[in-house]
Amino acid sequence: MVVVEKIQEMKEIVKRLKKEGKSVGFVPTMGYLHEGHLSLVRFSKQQNDITVMSIFVNPIQFGPNEDYDRYPRDFERDKRLAEKEGVDYIFNPSVKEMYPEDFKTVVSVKKITEIMCGKSRPGHFDGVATVVLKLFNIVNPDRAYFGQKDAQQLAVIKQMVKDLNLDVEIIPCPIVREQDGLAMSSRNVYLSEEERKSATVLYRALNLAKEMIEKGEKDVSTIKKAMEEMILKEKYTEIDYIEFVNNETFEIISKVEGKVLIALAVFIGKARLIDNIVVEAK
Amino acid sequence: MVVVEKIQEMKEIVKRLKKEGKSVGFVPTMGYLHEGHLSLVRFSKQQNDITVMSIFVNPIQFGPNEDYDRYPRDFERDKRLAEKEGVDYIFNPSVKEMYPEDFKTVVSVKKITEIMCGKSRPGHFDGVATVVLKLFNIVNPDRAYFGQKDAQQLAVIKQMVKDLNLDVEIIPCPIVREQDGLAMSSRNVYLSEEERKSATVLYRALNLAKEMIEKGEKDVSTIKKAMEEMILKEKYTEIDYIEFVNNETFEIISKVEGKVLIALAVFIGKARLIDNIVVEAK
Repeated sequence: MVVVEKIQEMKEIVKRLKKEGKSVGFVPTMGYLHEGHLSLVRFSKQQNDITVMSIFVNPIQFGPNEDYDRYPRDFERDKRLAEKEGVDYIFNPSVKEMYPEDFKTVVSVKKITEIMCGKSRPGHFDGVATVVLKLFNIVNPDRAYFGQKDAQQLAVIKQMVKDLNLDVEIIPCPIVREQDGLAMSSRNVYLSEEERKSATVLYRALNLAKEMIEKGEKDVSTIKKAMEEMILKEKYTEIDYIEFVNNETFEIISKVEGKVLIALAVFIGKARLIDNIVVEAK
Repeated sequence: MVVVEKIQEMKEIVKRLKKEGKSVGFVPTMGYLHEGHLSLVRFSKQQNDITVMSIFVNPIQFGPNEDYDRYPRDFERDKRLAEKEGVDYIFNPSVKEMYPEDFKTVVSVKKITEIMCGKSRPGHFDGVATVVLKLFNIVNPDRAYFGQKDAQQLAVIKQMVKDLNLDVEIIPCPIVREQDGLAMSSRNVYLSEEERKSATVLYRALNLAKEMIEKGEKDVSTIKKAMEEMILKEKYTEIDYIEFVNNETFEIISKVEGKVLIALAVFIGKARLIDNIVVEAK
């Protein structure tokens, strides 16, 4: 496994690999790897000759009062895990390498970013779209792997790729969960032991919604209310949002129909956690 | 010469050419070709195996009260001129092909777009950056050719290419002028015979500034005042802006130093014309 820090070097490596006819899979991450990330690597290794993982905590996708500074980092541990999983290249640029002082460009995907995390975190998805486009241009992958946990991010990336006529294939990968259902996240490390217990309520609330829909409930506000009650019964919880959207268009719905994405963001203490589930109404 | 209307077809053609080891030069235009465009083609043909020209009047770079609808178009004439000049492929997509109904992405270059044409035409350079990035992703050129007449556009494209880590080389090409100095522009067709005479004042005013600087004048407001007087003496003129900026950073200057870009936009009747000159102070 090779660690690459410079953009130009990464570009030249990929150019050489492409000339040799190799296919390149790409797993963009902010590091502090968990099973979710490693599952993306496994998908990539199945489908490509070479797997490139980026590890870059992207400052421009964090708001001024968010957790950029305290976001967990452990590059040595990440390196061990990535190598064990068979990653071929880690791209690990500095902030200055990615955003030199005179950096001025922003990529925005409109409309689908006006709700959910985009509403709670203004500018977040501009930062995501901009860095992912840069990474795509640097790594030039045939396929890129994103976890379904960040469902809105996935929708933004897919829309950007389509709108900007990029050639990369976006592969959504299923959410990886702890035994008790908590979605894997680097931010789970923020949780105290007590908070960790409360955190299971995100997935439980999503399952409650699923069950209600399976029993025939169609009214979103009824389901939301039941979810809210369940979540607020737990200690340390504060709901950021619970949203029901059409899984294709990302438009907010009030009546359950077809494939519905149910997504939520809940603060457990200071940790803001997200989760989601796709339910198909009969 | 082949005319291509579909994005996917254009991509496949270029992919094949690249596999054959051919270099691709790209001349993006809005059609209604003049000598300025054709000079770009000549530069491209000197430096590349294949030259692709796009002809696309890009709606998203026009403001709601601008001339999108009446912008001059004559595809048959353009085709003849391009073919004569040795263009290999014309990419001529429909608006729907470039912007399907669910299109949602905007590329913005900040700061350098806050002045000059960016100030007079809000959103204009977002439209330019977005379409040029799309075209670059479709045509995948080794080199792309832009006229220095649109100096701010050139600065925006160069910044975008740098910021987004694109591999295309941007080649700025000198302004082509009529015998009396008027910069070639598709919009010159808007001018009546009388207005056409007044229109020479853009270049004359730029030369006045140049002469003043060569004689040692450093104060921008003094030079601007002389230019304004000269322009307003002509019939049908209305000044949109006259701006002096550092040719590298695009920052507005009040004292002439180093390489200075002097740029102006003047309405001659209903036609908004732009021109510029780079002057180096001793």
